Amino acid sequence: MREVAVIGVGDTKFGELWEYSLRDIGMQAGLTAVGDANIAGEQLDALYIGNMAAGSLIDQEHLGAMVADYSGLAQLHLPAVRIEAAGASGGMALRQGYMAVASGMHDFVMVAGAEKMTDVGDDEIPRIQMAGGDQQWEGLTGATMASLHAMIARRHMHEFGTTREQIASVAVKNHRNGALNPMAQFQKAVDIDVVLNATKVADPLGVFDCAPVSDGAAAMILAPLEIAKKYSEDPVVIAASAAATDTLALHHRSSITRFDSVKVAASKAYRYAGLSPKEIKIAEINDSYTISEILNIEDLGFFDKGKGGAATMEGMTEINGVVSVNTSGGLKSRGDPMGATGIAQAVEIVRQLRGKGEKRQVSNAECGLTLNVGGTGATSVVHILRRV
Amino acid sequence: MREVAVIGVGDTKFGELWEYSLRDIGMQAGLTAVGDANIAGEQLDALYIGNMAAGSLIDQEHLGAMVADYSGLAQLHLPAVRIEAAGASGGMALRQGYMAVASGMHDFVMVAGAEKMTDVGDDEIPRIQMAGGDQQWEGLTGATMASLHAMIARRHMHEFGTTREQIASVAVKNHRNGALNPMAQFQKAVDIDVVLNATKVADPLGVFDCAPVSDGAAAMILAPLEIAKKYSEDPVVIAASAAATDTLALHHRSSITRFDSVKVAASKAYRYAGLSPKEIKIAEINDSYTISEILNIEDLGFFDKGKGGAATMEGMTEINGVVSVNTSGGLKSRGDPMGATGIAQAVEIVRQLRGKGEKRQVSNAECGLTLNVGGTGATSVVHILRRV
Repeated sequence: MREVAVIGVGDTKFGELWEYSLRDIGMQAGLTAVGDANIAGEQLDALYIGNMAAGSLIDQEHLGAMVADYSGLAQLHLPAVRIEAAGASGGMALRQGYMAVASGMHDFVMVAGAEKMTDVGDDEIPRIQMAGGDQQWEGLTGATMASLHAMIARRHMHEFGTTREQIASVAVKNHRNGALNPMAQFQKAVDIDVVLNATKVADPLGVFDCAPVSDGAAAMILAPLEIAKKYSEDPVVIAASAAATDTLALHHRSSITRFDSVKVAASKAYRYAGLSPKEIKIAEINDSYTISEILNIEDLGFFDKGKGGAATMEGMTEINGVVSVNTSGGLKSRGDPMGATGIAQAVEIVRQLRGKGEKRQVSNAECGLTLNVGGTGATSVVHILRRV
Repeated sequence: MREVAVIGVGDTKFGELWEYSLRDIGMQAGLTAVGDANIAGEQLDALYIGNMAAGSLIDQEHLGAMVADYSGLAQLHLPAVRIEAAGASGGMALRQGYMAVASGMHDFVMVAGAEKMTDVGDDEIPRIQMAGGDQQWEGLTGATMASLHAMIARRHMHEFGTTREQIASVAVKNHRNGALNPMAQFQKAVDIDVVLNATKVADPLGVFDCAPVSDGAAAMILAPLEIAKKYSEDPVVIAASAAATDTLALHHRSSITRFDSVKVAASKAYRYAGLSPKEIKIAEINDSYTISEILNIEDLGFFDKGKGGAATMEGMTEINGVVSVNTSGGLKSRGDPMGATGIAQAVEIVRQLRGKGEKRQVSNAECGLTLNVGGTGATSVVHILRRV
């Protein structure tokens, strides 16, 4: 297997992009990445497009061909395909692209993620999000993603003494980071009282505990490491790619305060990269709900089980803390266009490793981790990226 | 890259399977394939699930994790992902699984396809099918898949003198083949007058020129050729895997009587396999509309452009003709559960190459080809399989 490098990245601002269609934002992110990689579009060998729900959202499937077409590459007749694993679609697309280059099958591959969520009514979103859970056993009996995560939060509070304030501190940190990111949906810091007093969505979680509904796209160009330096002054190598699944429904698990798919994918990734969790200094991870980030920093091995809330409240996950978590603002503040998120996480890590993190730059970052989660942890994808 | 073999196959009957859910049929096909491969489910390293539109059809995305879960493999925490390229989703899933094994990343991989189409009203199907075309430029202006293929048929008749009877003869042949296939949706031969006099869908195409709405699933187990013989008495090697795209919308092409994605994917596949089109004696190809099969047997190089209708009418594509096309009954008679179709095509070729084609067995088949097409040819996937 060949080593694989990222030689270009691109993204759109995340938010309510009413003036753009899915094809517009997919094209915009893709062309930015191609330009950043200093290649011609014609050099691309294949496309992998992460998207969760364009069929339900805008009646459009077949996004592989669509992105190839609207990026002006139709005459190349490239292989192009959509990859879907609910909220982990972007991470899974990155993984398929990684495999295509590592195997020697392709040299230049674009991996991208895109989602256009604001073209449907807000009342349709919970049903479409639940398509990432177990619709037959959970959705049809009235569960929503927010209510399932509220149960996880309640149980975490019960088992470990996690407080409502600790959970809220995830949102405070991520909004503070997002305020430093010009591509974020919400560039506005909030204090903890705003989070605590916000309208309830599913007790104990309020509006500020939930990632927003977003439009957005992100893209990366991958190439074999051996030729990456011809194109990029600062290529970033993919040191590990790992994915794992779990039961689709939350109630089939022995515990709902840990996600085994995160633990399995992370443990593989650490082994592939030859790193321990404590060596990770920067991470973009799932915070679709504030409680998710607390679970994940525990399951990734950054903090002991049950200590994630306290660690966050004490500032250990702030920029230049013990581990800088979600410097981009995370899903909470940067936004969460579902299929785009996994790619956007990796784009942020690449920017940080290149020293292009601007006001949110972490000092001396040598390697970074992404964790992209689908549903209530039925799919987890972990990547570790490293400076060359 | 390692050589990759098919060591097990499984499928469900195609049809209106009201008594089964998507998870039931996915599981049924998967377990049959695992049994046929003489492996334990626990030996699987990864799953690739082809599905076009379960989000729109049954509000369920995230089918990778779902199939892993409901096949009893959740405790393995396997990587599992859904692959989508409209009607070519199954073929693309096979291709991703092939790459995973060829690259050395995984040893035992399940590739499967499944679709549950009969749980929604018939009036919703044309919109969902159009999600494989260009919804913005075609669907929203009133085009349906049937009307686009009717234009292709009219143009083929105009350019090449193809007759209505020649087009109808595709349906007659495929129904005759399907009558010999116990897994087919329609096991009933029809004569040409039935096809010609059927209710019109989009002139000149009638009901018998269009593949049906179907439920169904199919699965295969892939493994490196070097260990395949330990598990299977008659492994089949994947001699070539190729995919290509084209513009999503039909009107952006210079010609609508050939599909360039088919020509590009086929030409790559022939090169990889070291074969010419005339050496292919058996093929499962796209006949979602009767005219599609005529285009495809031309674009695959079996017959000269414009001669596909006459060749079919003269019996050259019948079982043991010049090339045996759609011995399974094709999408027309076997059925077309969209994401399952690409895998089901390969399952039929494997059965034929193993000599298990029963009443429809082709004599002396050494290698076979599959062509899985999405939308109006915006994605084409070609595989060539060969006896070891």
